[in-house]
Amino acid sequence: MQLKVQVFLKAAVLDPQGKAVLGSLHSMGFTEVGDVRVGKVFSIQVPDGDPETVKLRVEQMAAKLLCNPVIEEFAILP
Amino acid sequence: MQLKVQVFLKAAVLDPQGKAVLGSLHSMGFTEVGDVRVGKVFSIQVPDGDPETVKLRVEQMAAKLLCNPVIEEFAILP
Repeated sequence: MQLKVQVFLKAAVLDPQGKAVLGSLHSMGFTEVGDVRVGKVFSIQVPDGDPETVKLRVEQMAAKLLCNPVIEEFAILP
Repeated sequence: MQLKVQVFLKAAVLDPQGKAVLGSLHSMGFTEVGDVRVGKVFSIQVPDGDPETVKLRVEQMAAKLLCNPVIEEFAILP
């Protein structure tokens, strides 16, 4: 099975890449866009198993390697 | 409302960053991981509206700015 880990900068942390994308979207005519945040996503292939166990294991991967808890937060998606 | 655009390299395109993460996970003991792909995710804040119209608009943003269709593909998530 495949799980996705999304990692974003915390809301309180300035996201200059997001601001740059926002500026580009505005200048291309997408003026309705209010804000953009840019993050990373990891698509992780793991063997099938008990969903709770697998999710816990992927949470450990996120906490130990994929996410810097000082400035980032993560979410696990199917 | 907020929509997310996930951008990954196409499956046929080598993802060295994913391979590096895979190697790190293996060396940390997460040996069950079969593959990792790394992508970008854009969280886009747009005004509420007809969901189909909003999604179409975000698709245009993805196709014109966020995704390089030569080597990448995108998906729009709630």
